[in-house]
Order: sequence, then structure tokens, then C-alpha cells
Amino acid sequence: MLLVLRKDIVKADLEDLLNGLVQSGAEYQLIDQGDVPIVQLSSENNSLSRERLENLPGVSHIIDEEYPYRLASRKYKSDNTVVKVGDLEIGGMNPVVIAGPCAVEYENQLMKTAQLVYSKGIRLMRGGAFKPRTSPYSFSGLGVEGLKLLAKAREEIGVRIITEVLDAGDVDIVSQYSDVLQVGSRNMQNYKLLKAVGRIRKPVMLKRGMSARLDEFLASAEHILKEGNEQIILCERGIRTFVEYSRNTLDLNIVPMLKELSHLPVIVDPSHGTGRRQLVAPMSMAALAAGADGIMIEVHPEPDKAWSDGMQALGPEEFSRLMDKIHDYLEWQKSYANPEPAT
Amino acid sequence: MLLVLRKDIVKADLEDLLNGLVQSGAEYQLIDQGDVPIVQLSSENNSLSRERLENLPGVSHIIDEEYPYRLASRKYKSDNTVVKVGDLEIGGMNPVVIAGPCAVEYENQLMKTAQLVYSKGIRLMRGGAFKPRTSPYSFSGLGVEGLKLLAKAREEIGVRIITEVLDAGDVDIVSQYSDVLQVGSRNMQNYKLLKAVGRIRKPVMLKRGMSARLDEFLASAEHILKEGNEQIILCERGIRTFVEYSRNTLDLNIVPMLKELSHLPVIVDPSHGTGRRQLVAPMSMAALAAGADGIMIEVHPEPDKAWSDGMQALGPEEFSRLMDKIHDYLEWQKSYANPEPAT
Amino acid sequence: MLLVLRKDIVKADLEDLLNGLVQSGAEYQLIDQGDVPIVQLSSENNSLSRERLENLPGVSHIIDEEYPYRLASRKYKSDNTVVKVGDLEIGGMNPVVIAGPCAVEYENQLMKTAQLVYSKGIRLMRGGAFKPRTSPYSFSGLGVEGLKLLAKAREEIGVRIITEVLDAGDVDIVSQYSDVLQVGSRNMQNYKLLKAVGRIRKPVMLKRGMSARLDEFLASAEHILKEGNEQIILCERGIRTFVEYSRNTLDLNIVPMLKELSHLPVIVDPSHGTGRRQLVAPMSMAALAAGADGIMIEVHPEPDKAWSDGMQALGPEEFSRLMDKIHDYLEWQKSYANPEPAT
Amino acid sequence: MLLVLRKDIVKADLEDLLNGLVQSGAEYQLIDQGDVPIVQLSSENNSLSRERLENLPGVSHIIDEEYPYRLASRKYKSDNTVVKVGDLEIGGMNPVVIAGPCAVEYENQLMKTAQLVYSKGIRLMRGGAFKPRTSPYSFSGLGVEGLKLLAKAREEIGVRIITEVLDAGDVDIVSQYSDVLQVGSRNMQNYKLLKAVGRIRKPVMLKRGMSARLDEFLASAEHILKEGNEQIILCERGIRTFVEYSRNTLDLNIVPMLKELSHLPVIVDPSHGTGRRQLVAPMSMAALAAGADGIMIEVHPEPDKAWSDGMQALGPEEFSRLMDKIHDYLEWQKSYANPEPAT
Repeated sequence: MLLVLRKDIVKADLEDLLNGLVQSGAEYQLIDQGDVPIVQLSSENNSLSRERLENLPGVSHIIDEEYPYRLASRKYKSDNTVVKVGDLEIGGMNPVVIAGPCAVEYENQLMKTAQLVYSKGIRLMRGGAFKPRTSPYSFSGLGVEGLKLLAKAREEIGVRIITEVLDAGDVDIVSQYSDVLQVGSRNMQNYKLLKAVGRIRKPVMLKRGMSARLDEFLASAEHILKEGNEQIILCERGIRTFVEYSRNTLDLNIVPMLKELSHLPVIVDPSHGTGRRQLVAPMSMAALAAGADGIMIEVHPEPDKAWSDGMQALGPEEFSRLMDKIHDYLEWQKSYANPEPAT
Repeated sequence: MLLVLRKDIVKADLEDLLNGLVQSGAEYQLIDQGDVPIVQLSSENNSLSRERLENLPGVSHIIDEEYPYRLASRKYKSDNTVVKVGDLEIGGMNPVVIAGPCAVEYENQLMKTAQLVYSKGIRLMRGGAFKPRTSPYSFSGLGVEGLKLLAKAREEIGVRIITEVLDAGDVDIVSQYSDVLQVGSRNMQNYKLLKAVGRIRKPVMLKRGMSARLDEFLASAEHILKEGNEQIILCERGIRTFVEYSRNTLDLNIVPMLKELSHLPVIVDPSHGTGRRQLVAPMSMAALAAGADGIMIEVHPEPDKAWSDGMQALGPEEFSRLMDKIHDYLEWQKSYANPEPAT
Repeated sequence: MLLVLRKDIVKADLEDLLNGLVQSGAEYQLIDQGDVPIVQLSSENNSLSRERLENLPGVSHIIDEEYPYRLASRKYKSDNTVVKVGDLEIGGMNPVVIAGPCAVEYENQLMKTAQLVYSKGIRLMRGGAFKPRTSPYSFSGLGVEGLKLLAKAREEIGVRIITEVLDAGDVDIVSQYSDVLQVGSRNMQNYKLLKAVGRIRKPVMLKRGMSARLDEFLASAEHILKEGNEQIILCERGIRTFVEYSRNTLDLNIVPMLKELSHLPVIVDPSHGTGRRQLVAPMSMAALAAGADGIMIEVHPEPDKAWSDGMQALGPEEFSRLMDKIHDYLEWQKSYANPEPAT
Repeated sequence: MLLVLRKDIVKADLEDLLNGLVQSGAEYQLIDQGDVPIVQLSSENNSLSRERLENLPGVSHIIDEEYPYRLASRKYKSDNTVVKVGDLEIGGMNPVVIAGPCAVEYENQLMKTAQLVYSKGIRLMRGGAFKPRTSPYSFSGLGVEGLKLLAKAREEIGVRIITEVLDAGDVDIVSQYSDVLQVGSRNMQNYKLLKAVGRIRKPVMLKRGMSARLDEFLASAEHILKEGNEQIILCERGIRTFVEYSRNTLDLNIVPMLKELSHLPVIVDPSHGTGRRQLVAPMSMAALAAGADGIMIEVHPEPDKAWSDGMQALGPEEFSRLMDKIHDYLEWQKSYANPEPAT
């Protein structure tokens, strides 16, 4: 641990600080050559808490390689965080399903999808207006036009909207049209964006980066929490591995692990996590069985004609079949957790 | 299979090539409109090896979409293979649970575990007698002594036995004592061993290698099938990735993918696939929800005293709780698949 | 590009398709001998987007071997791009060394490092003022204060400056103080940032993302090139794998591969690519031997006191020893490539 | 090794424990000052297994920071191990080149290759007679016939032979014909095979497994060393990652790391480590620059006609060009390490 002192620390404060360290039995070394004095602390044997050290006069800040998250930890907050989107509760008693097209393409496609998903009980619809695309020559979304179509779907059909924001500069405009803002995998460590969504008062879905470790994932949530926004939904969407037959490797192990370590709700995206339509239904069931607070899936009225990611979108029939099964499964789960008393 | 010919193939070479195909009985079609001539070969009925074809004059290269497995493919055999172990059917209508200790340690430990698992309905017990261990200084199993204890448990308690065989030279002795032979992850590409277990007439559980792709996994099953043994159970047990919080990354995507591509039953090992006790129950449920034909889990009467892998073994209580939930879940699943007719 | 048509395409759809191609000026060829009809499209001159083609009636799918980059390709520009920074040429005849501290800490540290590296022939110094940090509690750089110190080092010592920019909104301010702008690994797919640095007229060093494939790396360069900035330096800095003993796995294979596929210069960062001081010197030599246009290494006057990444920084002595060896090696390399005529 | 005892250990258990240690000849020290009593064990001279110790009454857990290898460690043996093959020294002052075909195909191919490599100074030739192949339908080597051809090449041309052994049962026959036995990547954790090659008195080249960590690699070497065979050559041949453009990712970081941690010589195989012919020469140079004791490369008189792995084999011209460069580079390296005194 490094105590970075204030440039202008007064001699008396410095002496107090060092005396305090001596008395607490800490081994330390004062580095006073640069224009900012630093105290290097041997972390094993000091009994001073980080909080105390931070508040000592003359201490500017602390550089610490301890766990990169605190507010996100269940030690900090033992109760589950429940994120509310309208009447919908994410992280509460009932797992939720979020569904919608990969990208907003045109009005008819979006309205048809909105009606379809609404009819199967979905109250939060996904749909990309700003699409991050590997190739600069790929379709990258309708932009603000897409946001307006999403808003129209909300008004006319009654579904709430989740859509991606790609840049700190776009947070305001996306917030105007969207109920939940999504930070995508490629941006999991875009710290300016994390800060910007940390300052708004709308729920944020944070997707795990393609090669993010668990600590890094929660540390990115911490960047948002630290700015004051506690309405965060974590989303596992598959990691990059050597595996060849699926687009990504869905890491469901992380679901119970995150639930243990953090109070934040955890959603799974089996569409990106598999990249193959026929794997979406079984992996949706698996995600719920692993304890996820919900799933997010891609649906398209005509998947084969989707402008992006059609390979992984469910068509109306597959989607309806899956929703029926999920509803029935959740009934079983509820009754198993809370068996009716024998009469 | 496509033979891509050289742009500048001379007429004589082309005629030789086509005559050779005719003589070998191959059905083919010459596509000569583009700037590169191509021969499309119906792969089923030609006797020419790929190597020979590649080296024919005028042939540039070969595009071959055939997989390195045939007998393992669902195209070859559309019905599910059901592996029978006593009365137990693996790959049939009902998912199964295999349970037992990581390693056979001593008689009391094994008998206690056998009674425990039997009492919860388990009919096939795992237990390692020959243990592959990274360090030559680690406990590597009781060997034949362990096999004898397993046989005793079978006799006295009534559970069938699955245990690992490490070397082609040990197949005979392990076969004498065991109902199912396990080929472990480290040996997934030990072709001598695969051949040896291909020649016996007992079921074989083949565990996926730590960095095996799906094609390689099925190709290893093919090595066994080719020798005449069709009683193969595939087992997903986690792959090696960059992820830090779990011992392995359980790749459940592969369950529905294998079920689609192959007729062989698929089992999941959430104990090795997570390496953490508290993840075993949720990932067991997830494996079944993903469509696995069963799971294999490590149980120990006193996990904290296990000689190996105690971190990932369930104790008696956790195991009982999980089994109760699984039984109830499978009831739901059955009733969902086959709803009772309204009366 | 190949349009694979449906087996059962109706005649009217086929005619519409071909008429559409004629009208759009595309050159094509219908291949109709196999059991699946195919249209081979000359990709250069058609104005139809891939998305539209895929959605035409009768089209099953598209096989497209085009890469998501064109301007970055050596097919587009066969001569090496040489990026000029003052008198320094990156991508020219002579490999270069970029060196400096991980982060700008305080004036004395920076000036000492600048003098050290300048004295060993370095003309381009690295130094982070905006630091992306996993934990929101870690030291994240001095910001604009750091930029000013870098500018001071340039003025007083004569080294040019490369420093990281984290957000599209900061491109202007960083450009004012820096000679080369670095886009870091975490931002390799921050497309707003790529566009923003694509619009300036200063060199940009693009670092490979932790799990970026080669195509994705060049596609990100393409985002910059497409905006008009051709002064791009690619930087391999290690990828994330299962390997435990190094911070990252330096993927030197990519050096000759990038040199073959692209005209852009390729730099290697063995400090991040290993994360261990004692591996930096051998891997620096390896990078140059693999054909890199240069290396970028972290140097600190007192590595054990560095505020970040001290584990991987070279101290003055190790740095001097390495520079001496590099100079001698480059002499050998030059003489081997251009042997003196015997007299 | 530390035995952490239970706080509440009863006196009788403690006495039993210490008596047991005395009887087993272990040197120990009881540390009983803190609130938890600890026994510090000198690990070298006790015959108690870790597993037993962990299960003794009164023992809470064990803290063991030892690595799974000892004999392979540089702490155990500080001098470099030099493996001798005829006059050739591997691990000595001069890096070596091993070359030859992937597989022995037929006499003319092998003799031509042997002459070629011998003429460029190679004294140890590779060539596979037993080939591990993913698909059971691929060419898997000529077997004993291939061994005989290799022996013929040794006799007629004068090159020594290294070839792979796939199974413990084949060690004798392969030893008869070969100077160095290779244990391949797929068999790095085939412990029966490791033991078997540990009992012979011929050099063994151990190739790193596709997903082996450094500790596991050295632990596998330890299995061989423990049987008494000290003539081991380690071989880095690329690991499996998400990277798409190369067959494997050559992990050159491991070269200096292994040289630091172990006394065993380290060879690099850039043919398998890249899987692409045009990357072999630059990565060969990189391997030597990283400090490898040598490289092993695939050479074929007509790579395009090779029966296996032709994609990565060098033809005669490329091979000659590379050997010339290597010879010149090694001269430079030697002169740089031992500069001639100024006269």
C-alpha cells in the first residue's frame, strides 16, 4: 500500500503520521525525493485501517492493490439489490426474460417483434440502435432514428426498452429514449463511459468483457457504483476461448459465483453466449437452473432476414415454445422452494 | 469433397485425373466455369485416399468438410445410443446421477459413501483407484487394492462401479473389477488406450480433454467405435480458460451441440467443471436443464478430510439436498414433456 | 463473394436476382451444375450491400472471404507505411526503441527517466498521464498535469512523446501535448475513439486487445484509416490465455503475420507482454528477431518504487545493458541483410 | 511445509502427532506462540505423505508452497544439464538445430531429407514413425517399418535420430532404433509413459501439452527424473488459445522463464508453434534470441506433397536460407557474449 501525501503536507502532520505508523507497529519507508512525498507501507503488520489512513491530515490518497471492488461486494451489502424497471423487478423473487431483436432495422420489424414478445409476457425489450461492429463496413445501427422507433414501441405496445450506449458523449441522448442503458462487452473497461452511466439515475446493464475475469467484471461495476448509481444489472454473455463450434463459451459457473460474492442481479445472454439458434433454448433453461435472475434473448420475426446476428435469433415459434417452458419451469421452481403445506 | 485444380492444369493431367476417378468408381462433377476448375466428389463411394488425391498432378488443394468422425455421428445412426449398466440406462428416457468419492481411500470411507449414495437412489458409483496426478509426489491411488475395495462395495451394497484406467496395459485388470471404464481428460488422445478400450465389451466413459475441441472429442470417441465398442458415454468436465475463480470452465454449450451431432449419451461432471463445492449443486441443475443424460458428482463422507479434491466434493447433507431437488425436477421435466391428458 | 442459392429457388426469383445484379453493374457468374446453384460475384464493383444480398428471395447464404479491412491490407498498399515522428521513422529500415515510465508520477521521476532514455539513443518516450485502471481505487494518472510534465520533458530533453488517450472527448487535449497518441488494449474496439483519432493528423499507436484476433486488430486499424489517418502503428502487447507464470502471453507469431498481411508498422511491448522484469530483455531481442519494427519498454529510475507496474519496469542498469545489446544486434542484422562486397 | 493445528487440539493428539513425526525421521519444530499452534516440517526427509498428515487428528490444514517439482528445479541443481547425443550437446554453449520430416513416408523421401539436413550441418534428425492423429482415418505413420528406415538413414548418412513414442509398451522397440525418444504434447500427462521413459538411459524430449501450465510441464519432467533419467530436453511447441491465424500460439515467454527455474535444456518447435511455413523462419530466429538451447523444424523435399503437416514444412531452399542465417547469427551471439580483446 502506498500513501501518497499532499505536496504541501506540513512537517507536524508528517511527524504525526510517521509516529502513528511506528506505534501501530507498521514497517514503512518514506520516499521523499520527488515533488510528492510517498510512504510505502508493508501491508502485513499494520493495524491501521485503510479508512483511517485515508483521513489522516496530509494524506492525499492511497494506492492499493487489494480487492478492486467494495460497494459491489456482498460483504458491503448483504441483501440482494433489486433493480426496478417500471413494475418489473430484476433481482427479486422472480426471474425475468428480456427479449427483442439484435438491431432495430425498420418500423415494421420492430413493432412486430414488440407485439410478439409482449404477447408472451415480456415487459422489457432489447434492441440495438447504436451497434458496435468489428468491421467499419458492417451495418452499425440506425442511431437516433432507432432510438425513436424504440420509444414508439414503448408508447404503442407498452414494453420498456433496453438499448446500448457506446460512448460517454451519447449517455444523455440514449437516456432520453431508454429505460435501461446497456454497456456492451467491448466497453466493459471504457472507464469514461462507466463514470458517465454512474452519474445518471437509470438502471445500467453491464455486460462482461470477452476476456474479463470475475474480479475485473465486479471492478467495472464498482466504477459505476462509485459514482452513485446502484441500479446495476450484471450480464454474462460468453467468453472467448479456443472452442470452435460456438461463437462464445457461456460461462454459467459465474452465475452462482457472482450471486455469492455480490448483491447485484445477474442476467445471462444465451444468444451471444452460444451464437447458434438451436442452443439458445437449452442454455436459457440452464441459465435459470444455475440461479440467474433472468435471461436476455434475441428474437426476430424472420431470423433468416435479420441484418445482424440472424444465426442466433429465435423465430416467433421457437420463442413462444421456449417462453411456455420457462413459465412452467418457474412455477415448478417456486413450488419447490415454497412447498404448499400439506392439508 | 472438392478438388480445387490448378488454374494452369494441362489437358492431359485433367483427363488422367477424371479417368482415375471413373476407374475408382467415384461419382464426380467437373465445375469449369470460374477461373479455377473444381471437381466435386461424392465422398461416399470413392476408394481414393485424400492423401493420394492431393498429390495428383494438377490438383491444387482439397476442401473437405467431412468430419474426423463418422460412426459417432447422428448422420450415421439417428437413434440415441443407450448404454446399459445393469438395470441402469444411460442415454435413455431418464437422466442419471453417478456419484462417489474422487479416490478410494480406505474401506470405511468407501463403504460409508456407497451406503450414502445408494440410499439416495444412485446405482452407479465412481471412485478412483488409479489416479493421474500432476505431481509425482501426490497420492496416486491405491491401485489394484482400490479396485478390490470397489468390487467389495458392489457386492455388499449393490452399486455398480465406474473407475478410471490410465494405460492400455491396465485395461484387462480394470475390466475385471469395474462395470464402466473411464478414460480421463489427460488421456483423451492416448490412442493406444482408446484402441484398447475399443476392443473390450464394457461401457466406456470418455472425458473431454482440457483443451479439446468438439471435433477432437468426437474423433476420440471414433477411435473407440472403430474398434467395435459402441457403448460410449461422453463426459463434459470443464475446459481450461483464462478464468481465475473456478478450476475449469464448464462448457455446457457442448451438451445440446453433442446431442445434435452425435447419438452418444452425454454426461456432465460439475465437480471437476467448477472445482468448488458451492457451485456443484447449481451447475448440476444447469447441466440437466441443458439436456444432459446425467451428471457425475464427487461425494465424500467428510470432504474436508478427503485425500484429493476435497474442495469440490459434496458432504452427505449437501448431497442429499441436491438429490431431492433433482428427483423433483426430473418429475417436473417428465410431466412437462408428457402432460397428462385432461380428464 | 459467393451467393449460395436455395436448392429450390424458383425461376422468377432467380431472374429477379440476376437482373438486379445486372442493374447494379455487378459482374457475376452463375454456377449451376452442382445440386446447389451458386452465383460468383466479382466483389469490387457492385453497389449492393452484403446485408441486402443475404435477404434476397432464393439466397440461402453468402460465403465471403473478404476481410473486414481493406485500407490496412498489403493488397491495397504494397509498400510499407513509414510513420514519421520528428526525425524518427517507424516502419522504415531501422527498428526503433520506445521507452519510458508506465506512468508520469512527478517531475523528478520523469526528467530522470527522460535523461536516461535519451542518453541511450531513445527519441520517443512513453509515459502515461491518463491511466486506465481496473480498480477505481488505483492511481489513474496525473491527467493534464501529467501531459504538461511530458511536454516539459520534450522541451528540455528533446524526446518526443507518446501517451495514451482514453476517450474521444480527450483527443484534442492529448493531441496538444503529445507527438503520438496511444489507443490502449481496453479501447481497441472503442469505435468512437477510433473515429476520433482517425480525424486528427498525428500518428496513432493502436494496441491489440487482450483477446483480439488478427482480423479484429486490423479491422480496428481500418476504423482509423477510413477516417483519413494513415499514420498508424500496430502494437502487440500480449494476449490473455490460461498461462499462469506471465501476466500475458506475448504472441510474437503475429509479427511476421501482420507484416505479410498489412503495410502498417508493428511494434512489440514486451513489458506488458510478459509482466516480469527478467523476461523483458530476452523477449525484446526475440521481438526484433521476429521482424518487429521496434519495441516499447517500460523504464523507471527506481522500479521498486514505481506507482504502477513496477514488476515489469527495467531499472537504469538493465536498460542500458539491453540497449547496448540491441544496438550491436541491429548492426549485425544490417550487415547480414546488406553484406559488404568483398574487396 | 506447515501443519496448522486446531486451536483446540488435545494434548494426547499432539503427542501422537509429534511421536509419529519422530518415528518417521522427520525434522520438525513446534511453533506454539500464537493462538494457533503450528508445526514446521523440513520437507525433504520425511516419509509421511501430505495426505496422511492432513488427516491426522488435531491437524487443521497444511500450507505447502513447494512446487510439484524438485529434481527439475534450478534450486536442486544450479548447473545447466547438458544432454549428449553422440557428439552433439543440447543445453551446452551452442544452440542446436534439429530438423527432418514430420512423418517418415518412404525411403526416397527420408534419404533425400537426411542428405539435405546433414549437408546444412544438422546432426540430429526428427521423423515420425508412430504418429498420433486426431482422426482414426488419417495416416498414422509407418510404425516399425518407419523406425527401420530411420535407422538406415542414421547408418548411411550419419544423422542421429529423434522419434516419437506413443505408449509405455512401445518404449523398448523405439529405443532400439532411436537416439532420442520424444514424448508428444498429447502424452505430456501420460504418466505410465513418463515412467517408462524414465527407466531407460536415453535422452527424452518432452513436449509441452497444448494447455499445460509451466508448473505442470516441469512436474511431468519430474515424473521422468524421479525414475532416474536425467537426460531430458523440454520442448515448447505452442499452446492452444483463441487465436485464429496460427495453428498454435508459440509461447516464447516460457523460454527464459524455464531457463531461470530449471536446469534442463529448452528447445522450441516453431513448425508446430505456428503451423504456417512462412512464419517458421522468423520464429526460429525469435526462439534463439529468446535464449532457447535450440530449435526443431520440419523439412520436406517437397512440402506440397507431404503426407501430413505439409503446410508447416520448409522446402530445401527455405531451409538452406534459414540455416545460413542461423549460423551467422550464432557467430554474432558468440562474439557478443565473448568479445575479442582489443589488441
